[in-house]
Amino acid sequence: VQISEISNESVSLGNYRHYMQKEIHEQPQAIADTLESVCNSQSIVPGIFGAEAAASFAQIDSILILACGTSYHAGLVARYWLEEIAGIQCTVEIASEYRYRTSVPNPKTLVVVLSQSGETADTQAALNHAIALGHHHTLAICNVPESALVRLAKLRFLTRAGPEIGVASTKAFITQLVALFLLTLVLAKQRNRLTPESEQEHLHALRHLPAATQKVLNLEPKIAKLAEQFANKHHALFLGRGLHYPIALEGALKLKEISYIHAEAYPAGELKHGPLALVDKDMPVISVAPNDVLLEKLKSNLHEVRARGGELYVFADADTHIREEDGVHIMQMPEHAGYLSPILHTIPLQLLAYYVALQKGTDVDKPRNLAKSVTVE
Amino acid sequence: VQISEISNESVSLGNYRHYMQKEIHEQPQAIADTLESVCNSQSIVPGIFGAEAAASFAQIDSILILACGTSYHAGLVARYWLEEIAGIQCTVEIASEYRYRTSVPNPKTLVVVLSQSGETADTQAALNHAIALGHHHTLAICNVPESALVRLAKLRFLTRAGPEIGVASTKAFITQLVALFLLTLVLAKQRNRLTPESEQEHLHALRHLPAATQKVLNLEPKIAKLAEQFANKHHALFLGRGLHYPIALEGALKLKEISYIHAEAYPAGELKHGPLALVDKDMPVISVAPNDVLLEKLKSNLHEVRARGGELYVFADADTHIREEDGVHIMQMPEHAGYLSPILHTIPLQLLAYYVALQKGTDVDKPRNLAKSVTVE
Repeated sequence: VQISEISNESVSLGNYRHYMQKEIHEQPQAIADTLESVCNSQSIVPGIFGAEAAASFAQIDSILILACGTSYHAGLVARYWLEEIAGIQCTVEIASEYRYRTSVPNPKTLVVVLSQSGETADTQAALNHAIALGHHHTLAICNVPESALVRLAKLRFLTRAGPEIGVASTKAFITQLVALFLLTLVLAKQRNRLTPESEQEHLHALRHLPAATQKVLNLEPKIAKLAEQFANKHHALFLGRGLHYPIALEGALKLKEISYIHAEAYPAGELKHGPLALVDKDMPVISVAPNDVLLEKLKSNLHEVRARGGELYVFADADTHIREEDGVHIMQMPEHAGYLSPILHTIPLQLLAYYVALQKGTDVDKPRNLAKSVTVE
Repeated sequence: VQISEISNESVSLGNYRHYMQKEIHEQPQAIADTLESVCNSQSIVPGIFGAEAAASFAQIDSILILACGTSYHAGLVARYWLEEIAGIQCTVEIASEYRYRTSVPNPKTLVVVLSQSGETADTQAALNHAIALGHHHTLAICNVPESALVRLAKLRFLTRAGPEIGVASTKAFITQLVALFLLTLVLAKQRNRLTPESEQEHLHALRHLPAATQKVLNLEPKIAKLAEQFANKHHALFLGRGLHYPIALEGALKLKEISYIHAEAYPAGELKHGPLALVDKDMPVISVAPNDVLLEKLKSNLHEVRARGGELYVFADADTHIREEDGVHIMQMPEHAGYLSPILHTIPLQLLAYYVALQKGTDVDKPRNLAKSVTVE
């Protein structure tokens, strides 16, 4: 018999209407808890990924991240961090695709699996497949201790999001990103790509993250208002670029999952290669964290479809110089978080999905057709 | 002054209603023309990619494919071929993403750029970026001789699709796939992964491709009939797996581009991680080339949403053992083409998009908001 360590308090709704809303608001605490092991120290060490991590990390020359759904989006963000900050080649693949195709294994690759529950069937099968191909550097980043993936992988990192009840993942995703940023820093340091000064700067930014996240949560009333404009829509197009393209994917997935709006994400540069044909008054375009140059290009694209009523909603960083105009709506973020910006930009999109679902009266915590952990194929 | 070699005949509509329809029907000939250089010989040689190809290919250990839109989908198919048949690691990236991010270059990588026009702005910028990073093994696969990419790359392969007028690419895509399969065979042979017997088998399959494609085109009346069921839809979900996931992406893109139906593709395994929530009578699910096992899983997923009217349309291979049933519609392909199956499976999806657009009365050859070659960012 295992005694659950989950307290009653952590699974009661308290003052929130839904678990999803509660879990969105628990994110500053979830980040702080996940950072606990590093926040109190002045430097970051491989040991947070397990006793054998330092030896393992010294032997690897690339990373392969395997995951499904929301966790896959976390992997896509990490690819940018790992290649840019740690200078290590990274591939991210959907677990159900990887397990069924013939790939070319490189034994010097660190295979990283991501899963909230640690029980996702395809991710588990993908890790088994990787091990069978000769991969022996394996790391599981999960939210549930003693789960199948944690037991299967050689190295492990447990996110401390606490129990996540809502089917649409929120705080588990955010803490996966924190874990992956820590992995990036550890690898960057081991590969001599992190000066002591930048290490301190990154640690400072991480320690500030719970407060920064809280500030973004304060946008809630504004986003609840914004959601009214989406409630009668059946489509939405989310655009992002670079670090924020995976956040556009995640924002679209949240809206799909709980509001049943057909939201799709595209890397901003692909707009003219097809999806622009769809844009009209029934398909709002949501742009995540565009810089000023990209925003000018987006605006000029959208001007072409203004006659058909195309509307642009922009979640912009504090340092973006843009003005509202006819058909262009701006939601300014309280501050710019540099490399950690994808974490902050996720929050308003979670809130948007939540409030649109409220407007539509869907079953927020248990959306139709979906299960919390996909433990079958 | 350059004299165009394009004859009047090749740009006149003849008996077709639209260039797109004409270009879909020109695909058997486009494939035959593209294969001409190899079809008459008994073996396949690196020289078809340029005089320096043999020396270049002997030095590489991986492939990076850069492209936009439809060409990106051709690259995704090639990844499966290259890893499985040639045993060479392959990454495929959207050109507009690659050019703006910090990546970790490996000078032993062959950088392959794909573009019908050879003038796509982002792909050109991406190739320049790769060269600036120190990549000197570069190959352009284009349909237009003397285009910017062809001049920029060290190696080249010209597809012989002939002039493509319709904005939605059809025959250019198909011939890109042929070129990429030839590249796979050349690399497999050079890496001693192709026995003379399999080389002959692959060449035989390639030579049969124009005839096989023609047989698929004979499905046209059936698909025109099927299209009636889609004309009043606003959404569609395309599912594929492995080699056929990129074909699902391409089928969705065609429908988007010319019928303005919001079609989105997912790898089949991701269905339960979100998009299943969207499925109801207004969102048909189109499955591309599922095998029997996958089809059983799909059916069991769909049974869950039958109560909400979810309908499944299956484009199935000749060797798939499936029966029509309530809510499950089957379109059987005339024959199974093995590795070349993605080429054949593209055709009915092009026809579907075309006939749905006809039903809706859109401007098939010049869809709203889109240009044929995206020569600006």
